[in-house]
Amino acid sequence: MRTYLECIPCFFRQALEAARMVTEDECKQKAVLDAVALKIPNFPLEATPPEMGFTIYGAVLEITNHGDPYRVVKEESNRRALTLYPQLKRKVEEAEDPLLMAVRFAIAGNVIDFGANPDFDLDQELEEIETRPFAVFDYQIFKKALEQADEVLYLGDNAGEIVFDRLLIEQLSKPVVFVVRGAPVINDATLNDAQVAGIDQVAKVISSGIAVPGTILRLCSKKFLQHYEKASVIISKGQGNYETLSEEKRSIFFLLKAKCPVIARHLEVEVGDIVLKKSG
Amino acid sequence: MRTYLECIPCFFRQALEAARMVTEDECKQKAVLDAVALKIPNFPLEATPPEMGFTIYGAVLEITNHGDPYRVVKEESNRRALTLYPQLKRKVEEAEDPLLMAVRFAIAGNVIDFGANPDFDLDQELEEIETRPFAVFDYQIFKKALEQADEVLYLGDNAGEIVFDRLLIEQLSKPVVFVVRGAPVINDATLNDAQVAGIDQVAKVISSGIAVPGTILRLCSKKFLQHYEKASVIISKGQGNYETLSEEKRSIFFLLKAKCPVIARHLEVEVGDIVLKKSG
Repeated sequence: MRTYLECIPCFFRQALEAARMVTEDECKQKAVLDAVALKIPNFPLEATPPEMGFTIYGAVLEITNHGDPYRVVKEESNRRALTLYPQLKRKVEEAEDPLLMAVRFAIAGNVIDFGANPDFDLDQELEEIETRPFAVFDYQIFKKALEQADEVLYLGDNAGEIVFDRLLIEQLSKPVVFVVRGAPVINDATLNDAQVAGIDQVAKVISSGIAVPGTILRLCSKKFLQHYEKASVIISKGQGNYETLSEEKRSIFFLLKAKCPVIARHLEVEVGDIVLKKSG
Repeated sequence: MRTYLECIPCFFRQALEAARMVTEDECKQKAVLDAVALKIPNFPLEATPPEMGFTIYGAVLEITNHGDPYRVVKEESNRRALTLYPQLKRKVEEAEDPLLMAVRFAIAGNVIDFGANPDFDLDQELEEIETRPFAVFDYQIFKKALEQADEVLYLGDNAGEIVFDRLLIEQLSKPVVFVVRGAPVINDATLNDAQVAGIDQVAKVISSGIAVPGTILRLCSKKFLQHYEKASVIISKGQGNYETLSEEKRSIFFLLKAKCPVIARHLEVEVGDIVLKKSG
């Protein structure tokens, strides 16, 4: 997905939120916004929005000497999601269609997002997700693709959310390679989160090789690209992965909640809608 | 009022809205955002937010060869307000305290704002304004200052809104100098709007000399400054005038509705609150 002009005010909003997570020094916060501002004139609208994530979170990391400002938030998200895991696992197993219920919970987990959607309400989301209609629902194609798949590449998104992904992985009945970000960026999941969530017990975990809240293929590691090329089915979680892969001609299934008006418009759905969409 | 970091995403939002009012060419719209972006690194936070209005609306005007992109919107606002004028005039005259009712309607008119508040609902505002409690209510000081005043300087804000200002001017019983912007900027009132609204029949109308959505004193015309210096009471309408004059040590009465979180916080009120506040 290209960048739309509405994304530009949002870049600054996200940059400010990220900067405020890491420092109370207003000069340093302003420096992050300045770094974004300097990039704007040469930022091509053909680029995907997460390409700006490089600049935003790069500037934030510079301030913190490449630390992990969202570490506490991520730990809390993982902890909370793990508390919910047993009851959700039971609901999946008792559901008429366990795979579909697991898809629903995996999407519900996608509200845990301190970038696009910092005011999320996980409890409300979980209450609504069991019955909410999908705005795009390529479920039959998804099931068929899964049946024929040798291996599933699963692109994770946020810490906490990945506990819900585990519920879905456990229903796939196929070998899964689970992908996390290469280094901390916002509250996106990294290798450490995957271990905490127990993903390593149900899938092979690798990283994209990059600290970007999305999957910018030209920047990803060779190891990741090898898996990407050979995977017969790809599950892509969340907005950042959708923004960077929406134009790919591959068998990618996007699972997400449309949390911003630009993405909703691109998907031809409403803000708040849930989506299971095959690429292309 | 200084600029807060939250204002920066909002500058881009306003710039985008203004650009979209004047052109459908995305490249030109981006050029406006680029112009704002280039100013950000050197924009001191001590400056008031309307100083950025210079850059935003300057860039927009360059695209339109210094035309008046909001002309149609302003004409429609004036027309609509003039239709409402007779019934509001009657309500003022029949009110227990006509001056206060006129203050209320003048504040209600302040929702007509295509900069900070493009999704306004004038009908709802007028319905609520007659009874809504003020969050800041320096009304007794205001009445006393008016009694002692030789001349009132009234700083107007938006087209349409100035018809409601006329209701208040008619209750002041003092000579009034009414100030409009020096040239078109967003939907702010200019000399032409003052004539259409009939302000010239109840006050002397002058301009600030600048095309800025606020009153940046160091840039205003000498003529304006002469009136500003000698006025014993100043009525300042709207956010832009508040932002640029809030630190002035003069007898300024700010009449406004707090339409953005930054201004609300600065005034120590809630978003949506109405305010009659003496400066200092």
